[in-house]
Amino acid sequence: MPSGEERIIDLFRPLARHPGAFGLIDDCAAVTPPPGTDLVLKADAIVGTVHFFADDPAGDVARKALRVNLSDLAAKGAKPIGFLLSLALPGNVGMEWIAAFARGLGQDAENYGCPLLGGDTDRTPGPVVVSIALFGSVPTGTMVKRGGAKVGDRVVVSGTIGDAALGVRLCQDASLATRWRLSKVQAKHLTSRYRLPQPRNAAAEAVRQFANAGMDVSDGLAGDLDKMCRASGASATIHAERVPLSDAARAAMAADPSLIEPILTGGDDYEILATVEDAKLEPLRQAAAAAGVTFTEIGRIAGGEGTRFLDGDGKVLAFKQASYSHF
Amino acid sequence: MPSGEERIIDLFRPLARHPGAFGLIDDCAAVTPPPGTDLVLKADAIVGTVHFFADDPAGDVARKALRVNLSDLAAKGAKPIGFLLSLALPGNVGMEWIAAFARGLGQDAENYGCPLLGGDTDRTPGPVVVSIALFGSVPTGTMVKRGGAKVGDRVVVSGTIGDAALGVRLCQDASLATRWRLSKVQAKHLTSRYRLPQPRNAAAEAVRQFANAGMDVSDGLAGDLDKMCRASGASATIHAERVPLSDAARAAMAADPSLIEPILTGGDDYEILATVEDAKLEPLRQAAAAAGVTFTEIGRIAGGEGTRFLDGDGKVLAFKQASYSHF
Repeated sequence: MPSGEERIIDLFRPLARHPGAFGLIDDCAAVTPPPGTDLVLKADAIVGTVHFFADDPAGDVARKALRVNLSDLAAKGAKPIGFLLSLALPGNVGMEWIAAFARGLGQDAENYGCPLLGGDTDRTPGPVVVSIALFGSVPTGTMVKRGGAKVGDRVVVSGTIGDAALGVRLCQDASLATRWRLSKVQAKHLTSRYRLPQPRNAAAEAVRQFANAGMDVSDGLAGDLDKMCRASGASATIHAERVPLSDAARAAMAADPSLIEPILTGGDDYEILATVEDAKLEPLRQAAAAAGVTFTEIGRIAGGEGTRFLDGDGKVLAFKQASYSHF
Repeated sequence: MPSGEERIIDLFRPLARHPGAFGLIDDCAAVTPPPGTDLVLKADAIVGTVHFFADDPAGDVARKALRVNLSDLAAKGAKPIGFLLSLALPGNVGMEWIAAFARGLGQDAENYGCPLLGGDTDRTPGPVVVSIALFGSVPTGTMVKRGGAKVGDRVVVSGTIGDAALGVRLCQDASLATRWRLSKVQAKHLTSRYRLPQPRNAAAEAVRQFANAGMDVSDGLAGDLDKMCRASGASATIHAERVPLSDAARAAMAADPSLIEPILTGGDDYEILATVEDAKLEPLRQAAAAAGVTFTEIGRIAGGEGTRFLDGDGKVLAFKQASYSHF
């Protein structure tokens, strides 16, 4: 009879389509890197009760874990090659949960062209911890850096900002939907944006071709832009009313204007923040649009340091906490 | 004032010597793979109270996490390039612990020529979880596989077997040292072999040049050899009395002969198990010895399936549980 460990490996085997995964029967994977490329590497973990709720569907947990890493690769202009998975599981997680986790992960591995290369599973007395190490590639020397923003660059952001920050509040307190006067569809939009990020990997090649700097927005637009400016030795001025919002976020903010703060600082957006020269703004927007991703210009990079968000009257917005920090 | 997250990153920055780690200021690392090579990839996590004790020194925890992965690369004949770290930390773990963790990790990153490329830290309500994804390289197509054992091959193993399995028992019950009639030095040898694996990366190139099959012994010699035989479509016969033991393990077994079972099945050895053609046995042993690693011949690969351990009288040893399984 196969051991529990082997039965778990069997659940993940269909995901290991890369020939270098050796059908998960070897101890390591072997990958021949595409010639003329750099590898782009990222590891990020998600932890039960911290990054997702204990009763979130297992398939969504798996997809979120992969997608938060895919989002980083997208912002660097990189194409996925594959990933390694480390899974720590509490004793009350049974084969059914693991099977649903593997199915969800398999869907995204397929959708994003990113096969499982290997990994391990362990027991833990704590919550589920899903650690993923993701590998991608770019033509040698072309990874889009966080520190590449240049004075005069336009600041652009993909998709819409703030949905997940509002969504996590709705998950914690469903009565907010009434207070924010949201339709069911709007409330569902916000919570689903929290539960399942939509990384913009379709726009990666456009970012690589046209952007000077790129990073994904995971800890809040304000804080992440601040990190980009510090890495670039530059400052940024953002027009808050240009920041793209979903219908749902716009409706919530109409009911409670103070929500501008969680929208701009709350995190979990998994959109791409990038900077681009004037002349490349339209080419970037068009190439991304052709791939189904909208980029919106929200401000400009200047010399000096710091980031300012201006309201419609040109007054500087003040935030209590500019960025999410675990520590 | 820097955030807690930034102060943690500052502690790890000295480890990020690879130019592609960008001093940990970017979201991803970029590595130009050595031309003519395959990447060899491995991810493995260790979990507090499962793989190490809560009061183990932080530096040893870090080194163990890296070394269990380095051990896999050694058995595949691969040379380390660098690693990614995902660290989940409970609230009672402060900056002092993290600093000691980073120092220990830095020592091994230096010793094994394996710099930190990137990673992340998260809070967890559970125990410490250290997930490491390790990258190495081999000349294209030369990774030593688990499934490469051929009929007639000699089975060899590096170092000594069973020390860690006895060591973990001593850590749990110090009175065993008396029952096993161990000197202080012998007891310390066994516990230190559990706390801090000694992966045989020095022998990786010898394994790559001469071995047909290779894997590291982490779940017990008997179980891991069984996995190798199944992957290779072959069987193995091992002479238990040839299995190399330390003085300490030999002393314990003299006091309690039943310890042969945990020695051969207990796990955490982090030695290399390999198979080699007759004509390459001495070249492998000599090349490894020149790198400071002893290989001992313990048996032979044959057709059919299964693994048998014979005692000194040629009788088959029976084990209650052949291999460690978390599930």
